[in-house]
Amino acid sequence: MGRRRRGGPGTGTRHVTDQSVRLHRWDEIALEKITELISRKIVAGEREMLAQIYLKKGALVPMHAHESEQMTYVLQGTLKFLIGGEEVTVREGDVLHIPPGLPHQAEALDDTFELDVFAPIRSDWLTSAEED
Amino acid sequence: MGRRRRGGPGTGTRHVTDQSVRLHRWDEIALEKITELISRKIVAGEREMLAQIYLKKGALVPMHAHESEQMTYVLQGTLKFLIGGEEVTVREGDVLHIPPGLPHQAEALDDTFELDVFAPIRSDWLTSAEED
Repeated sequence: MGRRRRGGPGTGTRHVTDQSVRLHRWDEIALEKITELISRKIVAGEREMLAQIYLKKGALVPMHAHESEQMTYVLQGTLKFLIGGEEVTVREGDVLHIPPGLPHQAEALDDTFELDVFAPIRSDWLTSAEED
Repeated sequence: MGRRRRGGPGTGTRHVTDQSVRLHRWDEIALEKITELISRKIVAGEREMLAQIYLKKGALVPMHAHESEQMTYVLQGTLKFLIGGEEVTVREGDVLHIPPGLPHQAEALDDTFELDVFAPIRSDWLTSAEED
């Protein structure tokens, strides 16, 4: 197989008949601890990636930028972004659209659970998680 | 402006300083009724699209295919997919990855609320919703 794929025991992923169809179960995907205050789970396709992000109150994602377009959908809690020279508060039920290449920083004002969607995928996030 | 963008009063979207940064509020996005049993809300970027899909029990999304890669994340309820010649049951907390071009059908076994993520965006879904 030319490309490595996430899957197999412990990854929360099973292949469905056609090897390209995959069923992922968040509960069975290992939580990656990024810092003391930030953890994540990821589900990666070929063109898009979903990530569940858990941030404890006070967690800071420092200013950074990436080529992927990003949507941040806050499911619980509140994030304060610094982006385009402005502060933007993103609350439960909000989606912040971050265009490719635009630097942004995020701070958790409460314990926060959010979904990040990227296209193209953040291949830099996959390296440590590859298993098979 | 060369491209039409979603935004403005009633769409649940506001532009943040930099016109390309947008904050969307699901509660303020109009629910589009697709059939008697299926409704949706959409948030579109340039490279990726999120859709909240509401299906009442028994709703059927007939067999179809599209160039967009799709992730279907079930938040509540259960969907039974027919894909690649197999039945796949997708439950709360599951994400089904559907590769580009692969025909699929979905049936709601319960009242279901799910998130669809597409890359590239389903521009065929935007036509009726364009406002400005």
